[in-house]
Amino acid sequence: MVVSLRLPSLSSLFLPSVTRRSPAVLRRHHHHILRTPVFAASFSAQTTVSETDDRVDTQKSNRVQDQAVTPRSKDFNAWYLDVIEQAELADYGPVRGTMVIRPYGYAIWEAIQDYLNVKFKETGHSNMYFPQFIPYSFIEKEASHVEGFSPELAVVTIGGGKELEEKLVVRPTSETIVNHMFTQWIHSYRDLPLMVNQWANVTRWEMRTKPFVRTLEFLWQEGHTAHATPEEAEKEAIQMIDVYTKFAYEQTAIPVIAGRKSKVETFAGAVKTYTIEAMMGDRKALQAGTSHNLGQNFSRAFGTQFTDESGLRQHVWQTSWAVSTRFVGGIIMTHGDDTGLMLPPKIAPIQVVIIPIWKKDDDRAVVLNAASSVKEALHAAGIKVKLDDSDQRTPGWKFNFWEMKGVPLRIEIGPRDVSSQSVVVSRRDVPGKQGKVFGISMEPSVLEAYIKDKLDEIQSSLLEKAKSFRDSNIVDVSSYDELKVAISQGKWARGPWSAGDKEELRVKEETGATIRCFPFEQPHGIKSCLMTGNPAEEVAIFAKSY
Amino acid sequence: MVVSLRLPSLSSLFLPSVTRRSPAVLRRHHHHILRTPVFAASFSAQTTVSETDDRVDTQKSNRVQDQAVTPRSKDFNAWYLDVIEQAELADYGPVRGTMVIRPYGYAIWEAIQDYLNVKFKETGHSNMYFPQFIPYSFIEKEASHVEGFSPELAVVTIGGGKELEEKLVVRPTSETIVNHMFTQWIHSYRDLPLMVNQWANVTRWEMRTKPFVRTLEFLWQEGHTAHATPEEAEKEAIQMIDVYTKFAYEQTAIPVIAGRKSKVETFAGAVKTYTIEAMMGDRKALQAGTSHNLGQNFSRAFGTQFTDESGLRQHVWQTSWAVSTRFVGGIIMTHGDDTGLMLPPKIAPIQVVIIPIWKKDDDRAVVLNAASSVKEALHAAGIKVKLDDSDQRTPGWKFNFWEMKGVPLRIEIGPRDVSSQSVVVSRRDVPGKQGKVFGISMEPSVLEAYIKDKLDEIQSSLLEKAKSFRDSNIVDVSSYDELKVAISQGKWARGPWSAGDKEELRVKEETGATIRCFPFEQPHGIKSCLMTGNPAEEVAIFAKSY
Repeated sequence: MVVSLRLPSLSSLFLPSVTRRSPAVLRRHHHHILRTPVFAASFSAQTTVSETDDRVDTQKSNRVQDQAVTPRSKDFNAWYLDVIEQAELADYGPVRGTMVIRPYGYAIWEAIQDYLNVKFKETGHSNMYFPQFIPYSFIEKEASHVEGFSPELAVVTIGGGKELEEKLVVRPTSETIVNHMFTQWIHSYRDLPLMVNQWANVTRWEMRTKPFVRTLEFLWQEGHTAHATPEEAEKEAIQMIDVYTKFAYEQTAIPVIAGRKSKVETFAGAVKTYTIEAMMGDRKALQAGTSHNLGQNFSRAFGTQFTDESGLRQHVWQTSWAVSTRFVGGIIMTHGDDTGLMLPPKIAPIQVVIIPIWKKDDDRAVVLNAASSVKEALHAAGIKVKLDDSDQRTPGWKFNFWEMKGVPLRIEIGPRDVSSQSVVVSRRDVPGKQGKVFGISMEPSVLEAYIKDKLDEIQSSLLEKAKSFRDSNIVDVSSYDELKVAISQGKWARGPWSAGDKEELRVKEETGATIRCFPFEQPHGIKSCLMTGNPAEEVAIFAKSY
Repeated sequence: MVVSLRLPSLSSLFLPSVTRRSPAVLRRHHHHILRTPVFAASFSAQTTVSETDDRVDTQKSNRVQDQAVTPRSKDFNAWYLDVIEQAELADYGPVRGTMVIRPYGYAIWEAIQDYLNVKFKETGHSNMYFPQFIPYSFIEKEASHVEGFSPELAVVTIGGGKELEEKLVVRPTSETIVNHMFTQWIHSYRDLPLMVNQWANVTRWEMRTKPFVRTLEFLWQEGHTAHATPEEAEKEAIQMIDVYTKFAYEQTAIPVIAGRKSKVETFAGAVKTYTIEAMMGDRKALQAGTSHNLGQNFSRAFGTQFTDESGLRQHVWQTSWAVSTRFVGGIIMTHGDDTGLMLPPKIAPIQVVIIPIWKKDDDRAVVLNAASSVKEALHAAGIKVKLDDSDQRTPGWKFNFWEMKGVPLRIEIGPRDVSSQSVVVSRRDVPGKQGKVFGISMEPSVLEAYIKDKLDEIQSSLLEKAKSFRDSNIVDVSSYDELKVAISQGKWARGPWSAGDKEELRVKEETGATIRCFPFEQPHGIKSCLMTGNPAEEVAIFAKSY
């Protein structure tokens, strides 16, 4: 699972030629970006960038970079691992299947947290924290839960130097311990609904791991609620999948398809599982978030009861719902291109990078001055902006680096721009000259408005692009043969389905595709099952998935 | 370790007499407070509160409550456990020594996080995440580290149903895995300083646990940095203990004493440990945060090297620093009183609670209307406000409940207040009539300004009170006999110290007190060691501690 560096690190070629500021200042300011990316080696052969109109030839620079990150179009998986390493999103931990989330990757997770945390509170949930060690016996109480999770457990058997009497499970999810506690807090209908959430780490002993998508330990939020009626629980489960759907569209520009899981794919212990399914750049599906109506499965197993308004004892109706650091993988694989990462502005840790450009030493101070002013103005306007004023890299190198890191907008400032009090703005999502606009005024209010507009435009544009891609890769099928063709072409197949678990497993075995969901949005009209020809009330979406 | 309920729960006595709104609305709005507190039982005997001037007799109500929470003055430990249970801060997890942090307690932790997270970023640190499973062999690499931590480890020996080849430690702290990763990220001086932080759970298999203060699993932040010089590392370690000190004073109103740990008390693997020591209400010391200068201990053990500016390979100089959910325990034990919790406004999840008061049904709507308007106005002004409009409890019950929960300010609104367009404001920290001011205008701008002023006043007042308490309980001693007297009186002893580890351990054995720190603030003048009479450069503070 270790990403091998294909080229030696040649940092010695990149020592600063002109260093005026103290090394301490430089170090403090740039410690995240000074590590020589792998592609720097190939770039070193072309270190002289041609400049016209004070500009860097980005076409050429892009070509240079293309040699380093495996192009997405060439090998999706290698590209994904390259991007994660070179954009410094994550690294492999010392234990097989574990991942270190590096600051740039973690900042994306923080953006996810910041948005969802507010939404969870707005919808009436409180954060809290449950211990991660769960007595082994708890896991065994809910029959399908133990079946689903026991092969994936990490088990603590030694504590404080002694063999433990009861083995402890490191939580793979918390329904069992949550119910154990709920029995102590829930007495009457007046204690309901009980609606909580926790941000936590969870452990699942997965055999085949992939950074962000499936790791032995991952970070997530898990919501847990208890209600007095099945209707309330169902409403809550739907509410939360709606929160996730809105989040996916509006923040991450991922046009997920929300729907219900088939019985085969339902969460171990749930009555119904709702899901949001995202199409990655390789057209595989990624389950990006789930919301479960647990019914009374756990409350019966744990005896979580309440006294209703008429004085009767009843088991509570429950839900649980989660999104995880997997979402970061979804963002990478939805928007990235051959050049590297491409981040939607709303969740980008850096929305705008400013690259000052000068050739003559005389120009340096004036350019850096202007660049600093622009940075301050944008920062004050609430834009996440970084000024890359390092002396140690050429502008061409910086262009490549920040493109690979997926920063939505680049501002270039050279001596002539300072003279004309304007800047050049380049869009990450529109390559080359087409994405570049000259002569945008430096005047703070004008520039701020322009940048905010552009960020909104990029956000919408990424969503539209992903939608077109998704829609052009979903095929409506009415027979199993058509389904097989669609799947073999790497596409998603959507067709009427009312067959049983056996047929569903047969499709999986023969095509590798599973039912991703019965989407909430359903076509009108009478349908007949693609497999059996029997009447079918719904269409299902089939796809290969992560 | 289970808190026994000393009185039966008599929720049946508290069924609503008048319920006009739909049960669903009530449930949603009040699910956190509807659980009958233990003290409700004793209150039930006096359920008729006498009202004068539309008011509740708080003196009487307070007396009622006193019978339920063990008075702090009577039994500090029982009081602490009562407060944690009855204020719904935490509960015991199913595994011995683990704790469930409930929403009200977690909200205090979130306030701690919100403040520190900003400060960490302002001082140049980035958040990230390291895996919690650490190969057992890592722990053994740093000699004093393994000695310090190996008795406290939780060990995973089974993963995915199989015995593991190498046992995994559930992190007790992350210096080892951090260094393992740093070796891969740090190459030259240009990669330094590397300054990161993570918010995470950690596990230490403690034998004697106490909620928040010492639990088997707890939440914390751990900062980890690597520097090119010892001076930089020392500066960083000092910077972070300063951040903690400022936080303690300004946010939590805890007048900690910052200083350096003795060699005996230094963190396992550190060269120097800086600490903030807080005096609890029982005058025991609580180590509330630490910052370690690790020197090259871990970098030598793990080979964390960089190439310096002259091309030489050197080991990095490191720091680590942490505060944990223990701080919540410190807040409880610093400010609480016989009545229960008392929260400093800046970290209180609820700063103001509004209690509407009416006797006649005719008054209900008009009072609730006014209370809602006041709530909205304060909320809009950024004040954390809760309107307790439950029909199921009497105002007297609510007064007690929210006092016990430590809410800094209470606003009372009755029919006569509505007529005069004013409210009554009561301070949690000033009991009875003295803390109560009548006739504060309801006019939003006036009320907001008044409330903000009062919150500031309470914040300062709590700090001043804690400072006086601390200062009146520190005794300057110049001999071991004087030290013994001070400690036997439950006080802290401050005296010149230049004796060795052996003498320090003797003090511990004979008095139960340890050196909490050599405070940064030192008296001037020549001193002689209280134990040996030899010249001493510094005074040390001795105390019993948690």
